[in-house]
Order: sequence, then C-alpha cells, then structure tokens
Amino acid sequence: MHSLIAQIKPVDCAAGDRARAYLDTLTKPPGSMGMLEQLAIQLSEISGELAPSITPPGVIVFAADHGVAAEGVSAFPQAVTAQMVTNFANGGAAINVFARQINAHLEVVDVGVVSDVEAPRVIIDKVRRASGNIVTEDAMQPEQAQAAIEVGIRAVERARKAGCRSVIVGEMGIANTTASSAMLAAFTGTAVEKVVGAGTGLNSQQQGHKIEVIERALAARNYEAYEPLSVLAALGGLEIAAMTGAYLAAAAYRLPAIVDGFIASVAALTACRICPAVRGYLVFGHRSEEPGHGVVLDALEATPLLALGMRLGEGSGAALAFPLLQAATVMMAEMATFTSAGIADKTS
Amino acid sequence: MHSLIAQIKPVDCAAGDRARAYLDTLTKPPGSMGMLEQLAIQLSEISGELAPSITPPGVIVFAADHGVAAEGVSAFPQAVTAQMVTNFANGGAAINVFARQINAHLEVVDVGVVSDVEAPRVIIDKVRRASGNIVTEDAMQPEQAQAAIEVGIRAVERARKAGCRSVIVGEMGIANTTASSAMLAAFTGTAVEKVVGAGTGLNSQQQGHKIEVIERALAARNYEAYEPLSVLAALGGLEIAAMTGAYLAAAAYRLPAIVDGFIASVAALTACRICPAVRGYLVFGHRSEEPGHGVVLDALEATPLLALGMRLGEGSGAALAFPLLQAATVMMAEMATFTSAGIADKTS
Repeated sequence: MHSLIAQIKPVDCAAGDRARAYLDTLTKPPGSMGMLEQLAIQLSEISGELAPSITPPGVIVFAADHGVAAEGVSAFPQAVTAQMVTNFANGGAAINVFARQINAHLEVVDVGVVSDVEAPRVIIDKVRRASGNIVTEDAMQPEQAQAAIEVGIRAVERARKAGCRSVIVGEMGIANTTASSAMLAAFTGTAVEKVVGAGTGLNSQQQGHKIEVIERALAARNYEAYEPLSVLAALGGLEIAAMTGAYLAAAAYRLPAIVDGFIASVAALTACRICPAVRGYLVFGHRSEEPGHGVVLDALEATPLLALGMRLGEGSGAALAFPLLQAATVMMAEMATFTSAGIADKTS
Repeated sequence: MHSLIAQIKPVDCAAGDRARAYLDTLTKPPGSMGMLEQLAIQLSEISGELAPSITPPGVIVFAADHGVAAEGVSAFPQAVTAQMVTNFANGGAAINVFARQINAHLEVVDVGVVSDVEAPRVIIDKVRRASGNIVTEDAMQPEQAQAAIEVGIRAVERARKAGCRSVIVGEMGIANTTASSAMLAAFTGTAVEKVVGAGTGLNSQQQGHKIEVIERALAARNYEAYEPLSVLAALGGLEIAAMTGAYLAAAAYRLPAIVDGFIASVAALTACRICPAVRGYLVFGHRSEEPGHGVVLDALEATPLLALGMRLGEGSGAALAFPLLQAATVMMAEMATFTSAGIADKTS
C-alpha cells in the first residue's frame, strides 16, 4: 500500500491545457459541449493524451457483510449479501446488465461476506467474515483495514493486466449505508440526521432508528477524524476499504475511475484523505438519492454527470455514465476542426 | 399529413402498468432505478411490449436557412449552414461522432438551405431556399409549412424502412434559435427576454438586439397562438416544420422519439399542439443551456434525462441520452427476478 501511494502523481495539467485549446478548434461553438468538454480535459489530464482510449472499462464489485446489520438498520436481511453475490456471478443483477451494455470486464470480489460464497468466477479474497458491529466494537483492526485496501489494489492490478483502461467500482453489503454514513459524519462533522436516508427502502421510523444506531457508534468508537485509516477501521467496512484501495490504485496507474453513488463516494473521500492527488483521477457518475451523497460530493467538490434519482449501488450509476466518457473521447478523436472542414468561424 | 395524424393513438397505459409491476419483481429495491424505471414504463407504453427493442436508432438532421439571419441575430454567418451540411456528409460533426457511437442510421436532409448543397449522401428535399425574414414577411406560406412537415414524415418513413426502432431528430440552421424563440413566445405568451439566450455565442448586447428583432417580428406577423400551423408558417422555419412532421410520424408509427434541445423541443411542442397524443411518444434527452428550453419543457411537462450544460443542437444531446434508453430496455430484458435468483425479499 505505501509503495503504491508513493507512485501517485498529480494529474498532468499541461495535457489538460492542450486539450482545452484543441476543443476550441473543433466544429462547434466554443464551450457548447458543456460538461463533456470538462470531461475531455480531465481525461487528457489523467492520461497525458489528447484522445485517450478508456475502453474496455473494468467493473469491480466488492462484497462484504457488516456486523451492524444486527441492529436492524437495513430493509433487507444480511443473507441478501451472499445471495446477491450469487446473482452477480450468474449475470442477473443490474450491474451485470449495464456492464454488458458497455462491454466491460466484470469481476466480483468477496472481501468479507459472512458465509462461504458458492458461486463460479467470484474472487475469494476474504480479510475476515463481516466487519464488527460498530456499536459495540471496531469494524476491523487497522491491519485488516490495510489488508482490505490491498484487496482493492490487487483487483485493479488484475483489471489492468486484463487490458482495462478505466475503472468502475461497485459494492454489495447489507447495512453498508450505515457504515458509510458513520464514516462521513466522522470525516466532516456533519450531523448524522443530515446524512441518513432511506437506504434501500427504510420508512421514517426506521431511519430514526438508524440515526440513533450511528450516533451510538460514533460516541462509542475511538478514531481521529484527520486520520482516514482510523475512521475506516473504527466505523467502516471491508468492501469500503477495498474500494478505497481501488481508487488509490487507479490513480497510481493513471486510470480514470468512475465513482458510483453514496458508498463509493465515501470510499473515494477516504482515498482522497489518504492521498489528495487521487481526486484528479475521479469522475463522478451519478448523484444518488441518498441525502449523504450531497454532503460527500460537497466535500470532494464534485458534480456527477447523471442525476437519475437512483439509489441502488453495485456500481450501476457509474456504469450508466460510462458512455458519456466514451463520447468525450470520440469527440476528441473524430470531430473535424474548422480548418479541416473549411467552415467559417464566428463573425464577431 | 392529415391521414398520418389520424393514425396517432394514445400510448398503451395497460402495457405501462404491466412494466411497472414487473419492475418490482427484479433484483433491486423497488423504485431504486429512478428515472430509468420511468423510462422503461414509457417505452412499454409506446411499444406495447415489456422489453421492446429500440435499436438501431435513426438520427435525422434537417437543415435549412432563415431569412432573419439578415438581421444579424447569429454569432455565425449564414454560409455556415451549408458548410455544416457538408461536414455532416463527411462525418466530422459532433452528431456524426455520437451517432457512430450508438450505431445509429444517420440521414441529413436539406429542407431549405439557401445554396445548392454539394455533398454526397445528403437527401435534397428542399421546400424553398430559406424561410422569409420574419421581421418583414411570413417565414413561409401555409402550404410550404405543410410540405416541410411532409419532408419530416417521409424521413421517418425511410428510417423505419431501414429498420430503425427509435428516432432522434436534429437540426442545423443559422438563426434558428431566433425563429424558435419567436414561436415559443407566440405559443406560450412568455416575454421574449425570458426566452432568448446566447444561442451559439452572443454577448449580452447582441442578445438585446436579438430580443428586439423577435419583438418586431411578433408585432408584425399575423398568426393565431392556438393554431400551430399559423405560428409555424408566420414565425418558424423549414427545418422546424420538418422536425414537427418527424415527431408526428414517430407517434403514428409508435416509435420512441428522443427530443434534443431548445429548437427540437419547440418543434415537439408544435407537434403536441397539432396532436396532444404525440407527447406520450417523446423522451427528452438533454436540458439545454438556452433559457427558452426551460420554458418549453415546462409547457410540455418534461424532464430531460441529461443536463450537461450543452448548447449545440444537431441532435447531439438526444444521441448522448440514447444509451440510457438502451439501459432501460436491457434492464427489463436481462435482469433476474427475486424468485428466479432465489433472493430474500425485504424484511418489512
């Protein structure tokens, strides 16, 4: 982990400037492609190239259970984590469908599911069986948090070896909005009730209970808000740690990473707290309905490409945003310039 | 035109209800896919099928000139219309690039460019060479408006024969935000200064001049706000009329039409004023930066899928939204159900 972090360099602003200048030569009014132009500039900053290739994307879904599920904070029983891993393995979940649509290389990694996952093609890289119940104990030991980060790093290294040129990270873990909300409150000092939402389908009474559980966890745990690994170990989760590692690795290998919704963004914030240069490698795919997502996006000064009112996770919102990144790259690679097309420039 | 309009039926709400019920059996929390679920329901209403195919899309770009360009209302000279048609024919414009990305069937139709377009593969279906300067004369005669609508209908019929299962309509015409703004002010009674924006790149002084030109045109022309063809003929443009015809035809043939930005939405409003049942066949792709777009979207009670701050036209925003429609259809076709995947339902 430490040698990888030492490899992370800030994005290449000079390459971004070259992209910005080239964009104004293309056959369109200057600036008229809005966020797609910003995206093209960022992809040049990440890659150092004017028209980088970002295909195929690697989609990595990390799955783990959470001890805090015992507090009744989720609309679904804990067994659903393992059942959904089987669904991922069989190709039937939303992320499978959207990953196929974008010709992604998909990998599912068990970093801490409580039961033995019996499904083909799932990478078993378990650090422990579920994190601890954060109301009564730390989610994990600091060495376990580091080990889970290494799981994420290894997954990105496999995706890279498989030829992936961009990374989408998703998650599955019943009760992981509880862990993410606790981490976000710890990192930013935001009141817990401003962070907690319906998750996968809680009513307002259940949300009140979830807020109370998180407040108890925050009061009971020892962590330093400015020490990201301590927050991760005390309040986080194994898949959140793995996602953090994946974002660190994406930055180290100069691959654009498309960040999904609330949980992914908390992992992205953790990675940026560990190494601020990671931020330049992150593209935000989708604004989740979960209220905490607005808080973490503000902390990261991020504006997602999509806002479709989704609240699923799995990496689904990031996968849906991928064609927009692709559009930004083909715009740079294939559009004619005013000169090459023989078109008059503005009159003014 | 009249026999085609007589064919337009309201969308199939019962098919939409079947889609709504099926969505809640898929392996995701109910409602968690947000606007993508609404989109799946609408595509079922349009097609009558649970998981309709919408590929390949047909992209049709209508080009025409506007006499009002003589009033100095555009940042670009009139010659750019024909030059951009050549750029479309050579595959170098933004819409070409995005159409290739979604494997679309692309057609460019000259419905009223002032000069002879010398470019391969452009369909020449000219009703007249440019519309009249709306400050001093009607944009076109009522029969010419009908003829241009027929151009749009024929284009959709060709796309349908070529196998297209959805329609994206774009436009090119220097000064066509002026014509669209005038039409929108006439249809809705909105003050012209609330409708006019930067277009392809006007400064605030130039925008003031554009507002004044449109106000002069509105005062000088005779039209009935409740008679869409009279508004179209007095204030519109040939490509706006062709787009109107294309939306009418899409509805008649039960093809989903993805509406692009400001000009396309004014044409869509015109089609809905001619036949309100058209509205059910329209999906809105992108919220344009042009302030008038908000006005016309309100009039149509429409929420676009994307808001990327673009202001290009050509159909580009609609093409960028197409993968989201595709995602909605593969979600319906390929996702597992809770029963088929053997996954526990909510605890509550």
